[in-house]
Amino acid sequence: MSPTQVVIFGASGDLTSRKLIPALASLVGKGLPPEGLRVIGVSRRPKTDEAWRQELREAIPKELADAFEKLAPHLGYEAGDVQSDDDLARLKARLDALPGGESTGRLFYLSLKPELFAPAVARLCTAGLLPRQREDEREAWRRVVVEKPFGHDLQSAQQLNAELHAHLREFQIFRIDHYLGKETVQNLLGFRFHNAIFEPVWNRQHVELVQITVAEELGMEGGRGGYYDTTGALRDMVQNHMLQVLALVTMEPPSSLDAEAVRAQKVALLRSLRAPTGREVIESSVRARYAPGSVRGKDVPGYLQEDGVPDDSSTETYVAIRAEIENWRWAGVPILLRHGKRLPKRFTEVQVQFRTPPLQLFNRPEGMDDDEYRRALREGRLCERRPNVLTLSLQPHESITLSFGVKRPGNAMNMAPAELRFDYRDAFGETSAPAYERLLLDALRGDPTLFIRSDEIEACWRFADAYTRAWKSGEVPMHEHAAGSWGPSEADTLFYGCEGSWSTGE
Amino acid sequence: MSPTQVVIFGASGDLTSRKLIPALASLVGKGLPPEGLRVIGVSRRPKTDEAWRQELREAIPKELADAFEKLAPHLGYEAGDVQSDDDLARLKARLDALPGGESTGRLFYLSLKPELFAPAVARLCTAGLLPRQREDEREAWRRVVVEKPFGHDLQSAQQLNAELHAHLREFQIFRIDHYLGKETVQNLLGFRFHNAIFEPVWNRQHVELVQITVAEELGMEGGRGGYYDTTGALRDMVQNHMLQVLALVTMEPPSSLDAEAVRAQKVALLRSLRAPTGREVIESSVRARYAPGSVRGKDVPGYLQEDGVPDDSSTETYVAIRAEIENWRWAGVPILLRHGKRLPKRFTEVQVQFRTPPLQLFNRPEGMDDDEYRRALREGRLCERRPNVLTLSLQPHESITLSFGVKRPGNAMNMAPAELRFDYRDAFGETSAPAYERLLLDALRGDPTLFIRSDEIEACWRFADAYTRAWKSGEVPMHEHAAGSWGPSEADTLFYGCEGSWSTGE
Repeated sequence: MSPTQVVIFGASGDLTSRKLIPALASLVGKGLPPEGLRVIGVSRRPKTDEAWRQELREAIPKELADAFEKLAPHLGYEAGDVQSDDDLARLKARLDALPGGESTGRLFYLSLKPELFAPAVARLCTAGLLPRQREDEREAWRRVVVEKPFGHDLQSAQQLNAELHAHLREFQIFRIDHYLGKETVQNLLGFRFHNAIFEPVWNRQHVELVQITVAEELGMEGGRGGYYDTTGALRDMVQNHMLQVLALVTMEPPSSLDAEAVRAQKVALLRSLRAPTGREVIESSVRARYAPGSVRGKDVPGYLQEDGVPDDSSTETYVAIRAEIENWRWAGVPILLRHGKRLPKRFTEVQVQFRTPPLQLFNRPEGMDDDEYRRALREGRLCERRPNVLTLSLQPHESITLSFGVKRPGNAMNMAPAELRFDYRDAFGETSAPAYERLLLDALRGDPTLFIRSDEIEACWRFADAYTRAWKSGEVPMHEHAAGSWGPSEADTLFYGCEGSWSTGE
Repeated sequence: MSPTQVVIFGASGDLTSRKLIPALASLVGKGLPPEGLRVIGVSRRPKTDEAWRQELREAIPKELADAFEKLAPHLGYEAGDVQSDDDLARLKARLDALPGGESTGRLFYLSLKPELFAPAVARLCTAGLLPRQREDEREAWRRVVVEKPFGHDLQSAQQLNAELHAHLREFQIFRIDHYLGKETVQNLLGFRFHNAIFEPVWNRQHVELVQITVAEELGMEGGRGGYYDTTGALRDMVQNHMLQVLALVTMEPPSSLDAEAVRAQKVALLRSLRAPTGREVIESSVRARYAPGSVRGKDVPGYLQEDGVPDDSSTETYVAIRAEIENWRWAGVPILLRHGKRLPKRFTEVQVQFRTPPLQLFNRPEGMDDDEYRRALREGRLCERRPNVLTLSLQPHESITLSFGVKRPGNAMNMAPAELRFDYRDAFGETSAPAYERLLLDALRGDPTLFIRSDEIEACWRFADAYTRAWKSGEVPMHEHAAGSWGPSEADTLFYGCEGSWSTGE
């Protein structure tokens, strides 16, 4: 990697001190970015370099303190507004004066309000900081990292893409989704395509259903009710993070791990998500918000009582969707997505539930004679068959479990449920590398594999919009569930026609 | 179950005191055989009932002492020779005089020298103790348990079957193989047919090879060299126990767990084992005997130096075979069987090794550019793909492990080997029920599922004979390997054309 300048717009924000600087410090600690890395923070408030460093130093986690001190001399601060041509000219002069000057690579990180993404890119372009490039410009590369949310629906995302493409080539744009920086999310690809045993059963012939859960205990802590109310569960979590996870779990094998090979398969999958119409939306989605209740023994207010949430809010804090993938591999397999705030427990997991064995050979009750046994089987009175379930736990506990049946010791052929288990932490120790570290490194290296391509984000919005449109028209009722409960019972109906139930992360 | 009489011929033998009586005591302790169970031991030496009980009492394991005392009052002893009509007449009188008399069920257990199996059955029949029966005679049933070895080759087994069938119907004959009484062996059926996820990959499309190992540390302790030399590794372990395990691992799914459904599938599998001819035997088998060496740090003699082994012995103590199953499921998949005495470690396991993934997507070396990476892959210089291996450990540690690849934490897509693991003991605690307990209970119940049918035993001999014939003619060399080593290196050649190596039970 050649010498590099990183410019962070929104340098006074939380994301910068909590995620970006720790990630950069961690990289520097590992010796990963080259000598000559310079990081310039930009924000409106005037501040000296040293004052900014001190702010960051106070926020850095203890285990990164040493690494931070290696980074600190390379941190600089520039007061400025991304919408001011004068400020950008001053910024450019400062960057050009740094060692390497214009000939170094430059990464612009837009940790800004979403409405500023397009204007910022336009101004940076005008200022000569972020010109459109050819793919073979390897030394003095110019890239921009765009934070989420990328648009608020398909139309706004398309427009934002158009505005960015007016100034930049797609390979210069790094749309970030920090979920893709997580080890366990990246392992979804590895697990599927480095192991030959699962791929043959990873399809409609053998899979009964796929279930993805992001359950949170938190509500609107930290005064985020006002912002959240403009977003809601679907757009805050499902449209971006959960669809990314879904794509990795269900996509066809890529021919290589090149960015375009991987992203092409993800886009193909996301485009094959059926966008439901009319009654389908009603039958395939459940939305709700939490009412007052208690989480882990602590009383908490309902969503409507949270600070900043308007009394007439129609924003969901819980969403459950039964999606369908219209391709040869997955047609007819229910894909169940669920996300909610103020659920009893925080966990993120993917479950692939396989079909039950076609015959019940085992667990014949003691003393039941042949005729009675056959009759009982026929009438469904014996239902001891269980599906194998592969559970990929992404957080907080990173593990892989395959439930299966094993003979219970004793003088009869009775099978008991058991688990084949792997625990990330047992195997590798603490795996604390923050998601942003990997993503920043990839952006510096120019590897967009773990970033969202323009067509990918549009495919996600196309799917999400089908629900928001129908919800706006009031066709799908807004349920309430007590905070600390597992959501509205109506969500159970999404399992129609298949055997299964919502995971509780046990 | 109706009242039952069990008659053990060979009552003074080791098997009786070490296996049969403990198994019966354990059953009585669990309340499994009905009131009215009577056990009569028969052996030549005159002895009182009480003297026999005392002998058995001294041999019983501590944990079964209480259960034994419940059984003890029902134990009786009768001096006699199974070849003496007078002795059998006296035995009959005693049995008839017991509660229930002739109307109880009777199980005759032949813990005798193999050459006595046929004469014993003939005499018992003549004495009116063991008549040929119709299947609907449910009360006063008469059955016989025949110990191993059942013949010493196909011809002798066929003759023994003919002699038994001259007096009895097949359903009255229980040919025992104590391996089938083991929990973990029975679990092979349960594991395969109670879990829907493995069956789809359990075939030539997805399996690279199957490997079955019975490794022993012991040599000819207890003066068994003389007997062993008439048998050898192939007939002592492969022909019976290991082929049984193989059949359970590779058979087609039965339509039920009925004895005939299960055994029909086992026979079908065993019959589809290719009996090699000519050069095939040379290429598919390796035999050896152990030379002096050391096991776990203790010096031990070679096989030829063991007591009772003739100097000109040509008996193998080690055998490795590459078998082939000629059916649609398994054609072309190497089935590797290995058994030896005086190996470094005692373990029995089944490994199903799946094919490696068709593409290497992961583990690209740091800093290798695209072109170099593609070239390295093409030239096979990167070979980081590993197969998934399912290991079913049968003893001494009962466990199931599935090896797989998982992403190694870090900023690259590198995969590390890992294991999904299940441990019988962790899940169920001590599972000490002796193999004979289950088998005796099944014989008392009249369930022959876990016993060997006449056609099954003949199919096993047909396979084994192909090797012994060729070995006798000297076409396959007798190798030597140091005691405490993993056998002759020639056995490694059996992996030709596939990727794999002999397991060391790690």
